[in-house]
Amino acid sequence: MFRFCLFGAGRIGTIHASNLSRHPGAKLDYVVDAQQSAAERVATAHGARTSDRDTALADKSVTAVIIASPTDTHDELIGACVAAGKAIFCEKPLDLDVNRARASMSKAQVAGVPLYLGFNRRYDPSFRKLRDAVAAGTIGTIEVLSIVSRDPAPPPLAYLRSSGGLFRDMMIHDFDMARFLLGEEPTELYAAGACLVDPAIADAGDVDTAVVVMRTAGGAFCQISNSRRCTYGYDQRIEIFGSTATVRADNQTATRVELASGSGVTREPALPFFLERYADAYRLELDDFIRALSGESVSLATAQDGLRALLLADAAESSMRSGHPVALSG
Amino acid sequence: MFRFCLFGAGRIGTIHASNLSRHPGAKLDYVVDAQQSAAERVATAHGARTSDRDTALADKSVTAVIIASPTDTHDELIGACVAAGKAIFCEKPLDLDVNRARASMSKAQVAGVPLYLGFNRRYDPSFRKLRDAVAAGTIGTIEVLSIVSRDPAPPPLAYLRSSGGLFRDMMIHDFDMARFLLGEEPTELYAAGACLVDPAIADAGDVDTAVVVMRTAGGAFCQISNSRRCTYGYDQRIEIFGSTATVRADNQTATRVELASGSGVTREPALPFFLERYADAYRLELDDFIRALSGESVSLATAQDGLRALLLADAAESSMRSGHPVALSG
Amino acid sequence: MFRFCLFGAGRIGTIHASNLSRHPGAKLDYVVDAQQSAAERVATAHGARTSDRDTALADKSVTAVIIASPTDTHDELIGACVAAGKAIFCEKPLDLDVNRARASMSKAQVAGVPLYLGFNRRYDPSFRKLRDAVAAGTIGTIEVLSIVSRDPAPPPLAYLRSSGGLFRDMMIHDFDMARFLLGEEPTELYAAGACLVDPAIADAGDVDTAVVVMRTAGGAFCQISNSRRCTYGYDQRIEIFGSTATVRADNQTATRVELASGSGVTREPALPFFLERYADAYRLELDDFIRALSGESVSLATAQDGLRALLLADAAESSMRSGHPVALSG
Amino acid sequence: MFRFCLFGAGRIGTIHASNLSRHPGAKLDYVVDAQQSAAERVATAHGARTSDRDTALADKSVTAVIIASPTDTHDELIGACVAAGKAIFCEKPLDLDVNRARASMSKAQVAGVPLYLGFNRRYDPSFRKLRDAVAAGTIGTIEVLSIVSRDPAPPPLAYLRSSGGLFRDMMIHDFDMARFLLGEEPTELYAAGACLVDPAIADAGDVDTAVVVMRTAGGAFCQISNSRRCTYGYDQRIEIFGSTATVRADNQTATRVELASGSGVTREPALPFFLERYADAYRLELDDFIRALSGESVSLATAQDGLRALLLADAAESSMRSGHPVALSG
Repeated sequence: MFRFCLFGAGRIGTIHASNLSRHPGAKLDYVVDAQQSAAERVATAHGARTSDRDTALADKSVTAVIIASPTDTHDELIGACVAAGKAIFCEKPLDLDVNRARASMSKAQVAGVPLYLGFNRRYDPSFRKLRDAVAAGTIGTIEVLSIVSRDPAPPPLAYLRSSGGLFRDMMIHDFDMARFLLGEEPTELYAAGACLVDPAIADAGDVDTAVVVMRTAGGAFCQISNSRRCTYGYDQRIEIFGSTATVRADNQTATRVELASGSGVTREPALPFFLERYADAYRLELDDFIRALSGESVSLATAQDGLRALLLADAAESSMRSGHPVALSG
Repeated sequence: MFRFCLFGAGRIGTIHASNLSRHPGAKLDYVVDAQQSAAERVATAHGARTSDRDTALADKSVTAVIIASPTDTHDELIGACVAAGKAIFCEKPLDLDVNRARASMSKAQVAGVPLYLGFNRRYDPSFRKLRDAVAAGTIGTIEVLSIVSRDPAPPPLAYLRSSGGLFRDMMIHDFDMARFLLGEEPTELYAAGACLVDPAIADAGDVDTAVVVMRTAGGAFCQISNSRRCTYGYDQRIEIFGSTATVRADNQTATRVELASGSGVTREPALPFFLERYADAYRLELDDFIRALSGESVSLATAQDGLRALLLADAAESSMRSGHPVALSG
Repeated sequence: MFRFCLFGAGRIGTIHASNLSRHPGAKLDYVVDAQQSAAERVATAHGARTSDRDTALADKSVTAVIIASPTDTHDELIGACVAAGKAIFCEKPLDLDVNRARASMSKAQVAGVPLYLGFNRRYDPSFRKLRDAVAAGTIGTIEVLSIVSRDPAPPPLAYLRSSGGLFRDMMIHDFDMARFLLGEEPTELYAAGACLVDPAIADAGDVDTAVVVMRTAGGAFCQISNSRRCTYGYDQRIEIFGSTATVRADNQTATRVELASGSGVTREPALPFFLERYADAYRLELDDFIRALSGESVSLATAQDGLRALLLADAAESSMRSGHPVALSG
Repeated sequence: MFRFCLFGAGRIGTIHASNLSRHPGAKLDYVVDAQQSAAERVATAHGARTSDRDTALADKSVTAVIIASPTDTHDELIGACVAAGKAIFCEKPLDLDVNRARASMSKAQVAGVPLYLGFNRRYDPSFRKLRDAVAAGTIGTIEVLSIVSRDPAPPPLAYLRSSGGLFRDMMIHDFDMARFLLGEEPTELYAAGACLVDPAIADAGDVDTAVVVMRTAGGAFCQISNSRRCTYGYDQRIEIFGSTATVRADNQTATRVELASGSGVTREPALPFFLERYADAYRLELDDFIRALSGESVSLATAQDGLRALLLADAAESSMRSGHPVALSG
């Protein structure tokens, strides 16, 4: 039974707490949040206690931590957790700054502390099935990977302003997924973006719509399309065009009901957002983190993966700003 | 080059004329219709001439006839064509009366004149593919055949009154399709019907909604569902549940376009009616009739098939009236 | 917090125990099973204790019981639970014998003890959505309800022999669903069945394939198709053809992945069996039972519903044996 | 009745001849081809005569010509047809060289001779429906247009060598479609390409796989993905993501049959190639050309459209070679 401390009792922290409490091999002991009321809500629901950071980290019975607090707290928290020797599962991104991200990674490596990143989509059963098909050779060699990833609506401007921008906040998931599926590193990236949804996003210095083309050393292409608005739900589709076959994952719906009438045959829109679409993925990635604590080999994103994705996001930002493709160092 | 005479220049006769004129091995010479203006319209469009029946049948260069005139003219026309030694392609049904149908069939048999029935659905590429799958053993043994067949809207009451009723006018197609796909004869039939669409249909002594269950000697079941009204187009679906797999044919649409919005993802309703859905089938069955004229073996419905379907329709009518299943003689 | 006793620690009892343990308003206190090891396994997993029947029922703190033991124990257990004043959630059927079922129902009614039946499909989100569409008037008047319900493979013969036969064991779910969706009682029923899957099932006096046609007073038709074997998973589909539109629920799959290659475009087979397909339904029906304990109005099947379904199953058996439709008393 | 001369009796010329012969307002009089046997085959099938170019063009009764001969003959043929005052329908491209294309266009303009380009996909009913949805405002403002266009297999190397390369030979269709759907001109284009299918194609100086990103003045993005090989048929899909809804056209299949078995539910691959997929489009564009001859306004691609598409293809070639985006002059 591994005992846990959770940092961050917001939307995602709450999911992790609930998934921990259902796991026979885990026990949530501490919940730490700057907002005490939020910490208490989550702690009460799962028989844990609230605490300050240092008290929790000083508890020798705590094996592992989940970091689901705001991004700008990650760097310092990782440092403290590494110092306390706790295995870390940290929500993406490590940090918005590549150097600080690299430093966090190094600290953990030097100390031999496991540091995993919460790229939950790696555990989405559909996307996992795509990867398994690639690994099994079912589609031959990947030629074109196409990722469509669209949020139902823009987040609040306050969030956007500290988000690091669309590439570091949103497309970073797609960059990780691209690396996860391609099985090799992109060597070149071209990005274009625009503000088509809400001019206030442009005023905040960000874009809300972006397309990216990447190439790998092996010659494969990757297309990514992002939007901060999608009227038919949370649009999360991937297609992998291979030399001998193609696999694709379509959007998911709550039921398989359709209505046939004079105006056509209508099925449901896509699931509304990530809480619904990736409910299984959140659960399965935590299962794997607990497996990792037992020394099993897992496919969780590592700090290194997190850094790679961040470097791609930076490159995309740079390409968009310059209007030119960016070469990526392997 | 086979020369043809067409009897009946209505909706279906017009289709046959058009398909004949596109066929390199056929030539339409005569069009005969009680309404001279209709005959002229079709004749002019295809370089044929109008005529009375006897003149056309006396022309030795005419090899074959297509009978697409009203059902109550079939019996006499078949007699005349048989006497003239013309190969006959007759729209279903042979006759509404089993005895007259049997007599027509006998006349043709005795005279050695080919007499085929226009059960065009046998040539629908989707249904043909179902049959091919059955024949190839792809689904093992048929266990349950389910046919859904619904018209977009009831025909005019005047038509209904002389139609012979839903079973002889509409479900007769499904009876032929059931025999075509099952590859064996039904031995028992239970029918239930009601008037749910328009009470005027009940006043005309007919039903507009009906379900049938049949069994074969081999043990397979067949479910048929008919309605005279369907809001989403012409509903023509078949599913064959077999011991090792299942094949099904869904409705067809004009395009594969769909619209995704907040209210869901909408594709087109089914094609509107038989002219659209069975356009290919009409063409392909006529191709086969022309092949038959050259002595090739074809899968056109024969007079015998037409009689069998009519017997099933009669049995359905009888079962519905009595409320009890009807045993069918092999 | 309602405290529970669970009778039966088999496959379905285990699901209920797990759903109880996740519910904030419920607590599983006792697990009773003739097989002590099974009881212990479930009790241990959920912090409950094992017990004999009478000890558990004597505990005043226990409000409600779940009966998931073999059908032939239902009658006596219901009697004991009614005597102890415990609210009852009983897996279907009440009993294989209509008279005993009626007696159980009466005992509960007289004592004012709630007695609900576990027709879990009422809580399947897809089927619930069909019912909501009917209730909202989205499809007008129901004209034809079609239910396809096929198990992936026959159960063991030992199970079959005490199951009461296909109609009472399997199609009983479809009878309840038909009543639930039609919103009125069938007035006539015709059933046909055969043994097409395994002759040993015939030797056991049962059938493995059956089709049923029912009519209601209001004029609607219902078609049901059952098989004990289906190669593409657990086939659970419903279509409701209405006067203004049609709704249908297709099978569900684990993911929305498809593979496109030279042999076509392949998506997954249906979910394997009821544990997967109805996982949500089991959880949601228990939620509603707990709501019922608080006095809320729920759409759980009542003992009366259970009796009605059993009467339809008996009528189907009788129709199949006699070969004739059976009139049903309102 | 408009009388026609056809230049080029190859695959596409044969389609046009057949569509002409079915049109009540057109008559094919002359077939001209460097290969006399090919010309004779087509002429005989449709009651036309073979001829040399000048004889056909000297015939005053000929109103219009169809140019379906090799690309390198277009320039000279257009010149001769313009001189003879014949209305021209020319298969794409006008020419592989922009200057010659421009010169052809000018000649026709100066002489007041109609010159249309055969971008048949504008007449594909699915793509036409997409455009109608855009025009009707159904999807709001276009934000991202995504075109997938993949051939089943590479053409012969001999063809490739004189094709002008993937962008001018294959993607030129997608460039025209992008302009047709976007309703505005691209202002920037980035292209990347590679040889992933067959190294012999690289040896011929061409690529077989390419992706393009374009932007318009209005801010919309367009993604195009091309491959010379696709195992599941001719892959022709378009999705238009708009501000209020999204429309998409999926691939088409010969039938709507699917097979359900233990390995999943399989539907057909896409139609094999352009002859099947665009059969309707070829017919409908010729209908429109004949309408244009009567002075009606049509949506046929003009020489100006052909030139625009060629300029985009040149820009793509240039972007791919340089590795940088190319700005396009309005």
